[in-house]
Amino acid sequence: MKVKQKGANAERELIHLFWSTGTWSGVRVAGSGSMSYPSPDVIVSNGERRLAIECKSLSGTNKFFATREISELQEFCSKFGAEPWIAMRFDNDKWYFLNLEDMKKNNKGYSISYSIAKQKGLLFEELIGVYRQARLV
Amino acid sequence: MKVKQKGANAERELIHLFWSTGTWSGVRVAGSGSMSYPSPDVIVSNGERRLAIECKSLSGTNKFFATREISELQEFCSKFGAEPWIAMRFDNDKWYFLNLEDMKKNNKGYSISYSIAKQKGLLFEELIGVYRQARLV
Repeated sequence: MKVKQKGANAERELIHLFWSTGTWSGVRVAGSGSMSYPSPDVIVSNGERRLAIECKSLSGTNKFFATREISELQEFCSKFGAEPWIAMRFDNDKWYFLNLEDMKKNNKGYSISYSIAKQKGLLFEELIGVYRQARLV
Repeated sequence: MKVKQKGANAERELIHLFWSTGTWSGVRVAGSGSMSYPSPDVIVSNGERRLAIECKSLSGTNKFFATREISELQEFCSKFGAEPWIAMRFDNDKWYFLNLEDMKKNNKGYSISYSIAKQKGLLFEELIGVYRQARLV
């Protein structure tokens, strides 16, 4: 399967996940084409929280992100009013949702390994439950 | 120019307009493809207001909307937490932004004429100024 197609399928899978909750809605963002504005792969909302998600489905055990990719996600979220998240799915495993702070930074950019994703990432149910838990405290 | 291409260009034009303000950000929504969830053409936000926009650029003087198209926009907005808007640009004129209440309903759906759009529609500057004006009252 081509990389681009695999990416689009991963985004669709995420969108299905959010809509299947009954309380979340979401859209895939159209490719930038001739435009060069920062944008995430997916935006979802339950009317209270909005999440802007970079979505990666991969076969390897380590994912690299260019510094610019992350700074553009932050810029978009700051203007749009959304939480920045990285959604990662390694072959034959679940989705893990990571904060930008969970990424390992070096002078070339950021990376997340499979072990870090499993250790620090939230599962889908945890991600969408966070707000409710915070409110009940 | 093909209808689909013309639609995409109109969406890009709107996205440029919002980003050019310096305070608004926005994205084009990817075509539904195999998915059948309700979604608008464009979503924009300034961090306080979120607008979900159906975007139409047309040559005629009357635009028809199927009832389902409008009810899906309402459903999306209700879940996502966004204001529903119709953006219309008739050839050689400006963008007009219309509320769903401004549309004329019959038993087949909704329609907006060029004259209604000019009479009831907000100009871009009015659309993005509404919130500030409301807050200053």
